[in-house]
Amino acid sequence: MKKVAVLIFDNFETLDVFGPVEIFGVLKDLYQIKFYSLNGGLVSNAHGVTIVTEKLELIKDGVAIFLIPGGYGTRIEVNNTNLLTSVSSISQKSEFVLTVCTGSGLLAKTGILNGFHATSNKRAFEWAMSQGEKVKWIKKARWVVDGKYYTSAGVSAGMDMVFGFLQDQHGIEFARKIAFQIEYTWQEDKDADDFYNQLKITLK
Amino acid sequence: MKKVAVLIFDNFETLDVFGPVEIFGVLKDLYQIKFYSLNGGLVSNAHGVTIVTEKLELIKDGVAIFLIPGGYGTRIEVNNTNLLTSVSSISQKSEFVLTVCTGSGLLAKTGILNGFHATSNKRAFEWAMSQGEKVKWIKKARWVVDGKYYTSAGVSAGMDMVFGFLQDQHGIEFARKIAFQIEYTWQEDKDADDFYNQLKITLK
Repeated sequence: MKKVAVLIFDNFETLDVFGPVEIFGVLKDLYQIKFYSLNGGLVSNAHGVTIVTEKLELIKDGVAIFLIPGGYGTRIEVNNTNLLTSVSSISQKSEFVLTVCTGSGLLAKTGILNGFHATSNKRAFEWAMSQGEKVKWIKKARWVVDGKYYTSAGVSAGMDMVFGFLQDQHGIEFARKIAFQIEYTWQEDKDADDFYNQLKITLK
Repeated sequence: MKKVAVLIFDNFETLDVFGPVEIFGVLKDLYQIKFYSLNGGLVSNAHGVTIVTEKLELIKDGVAIFLIPGGYGTRIEVNNTNLLTSVSSISQKSEFVLTVCTGSGLLAKTGILNGFHATSNKRAFEWAMSQGEKVKWIKKARWVVDGKYYTSAGVSAGMDMVFGFLQDQHGIEFARKIAFQIEYTWQEDKDADDFYNQLKITLK
């Protein structure tokens, strides 16, 4: 049983969290999901969602899979030194780190993505790049894998990335079967980015 | 500002709830989302998610949009008379009722879908049909619209349905723009069902 620890902070993006949670959640014999925030307790976002979390310090020794979502909250949290210290430490000690959307900006701010390839949300790409200038940012990608770091494009791309992660862990037929089960049309090609045009618009 | 009330019960399916919530949530100037359960308070599911809800009786006069998710919990809740009475009343008084996955089975059990066209999750279609034999069940559909009732196929289909709802309310370009914004590849054709083969397997 592999532990999936999901980082939660105020104003996390709903689907960045719960898209991946649905997929890992279906695989309840293989993965166990828990939610963590810096101080634990109830955490809310702008979509009216309030969820229960535990304290991040409980996973200070790392986990199998550490998932970092995006959302407007990341713009605030990149200035939260305590959170960055904790995210940096947990990420270094975890087996895999997965980010969705602007979650890669938050992770980049810790410095541990320096030298690694990564991607982010099209609509906030310049912001993400500004959080880690030594990261090898890839603008046209659905998701990017570099070593133990999986980073995805915006919101819905997180689901495609998690299926890609399942493919790497369990094979493509396994990943396809789970996607079919939840009636999800998986974009299997991590380099096929239908939303790249949006980047060209927003980067002007 | 239209109110979106999301029904929550033990063991709701994660993405059935949070896929639609992401989409309505992006439109924060148009839609306000709230979560309701029979008794209010914290409600959990098998994916480790625990969320805060209010009491269902607070919306006894109906809302603009009442969203009913699926999940294994529906198998229990179809026997919960208090919940069914409340769901029936709220659904009749609401402007629109949207169901995802086996949520249509729960709604069918109240009887108010009798005579209406509806669909459900491929993997539980027989179960859904058994909850409402007078419903005109449509097996091959991504989602179905009949009057004020929108019902979708399994899990991820809920997102396509909500974009379909936005199309009906605000036009297709509006819906496409929001899908693009969250980097979601919207299946725009409600009759295009890539998962129909699964039904043929599971209905044997």
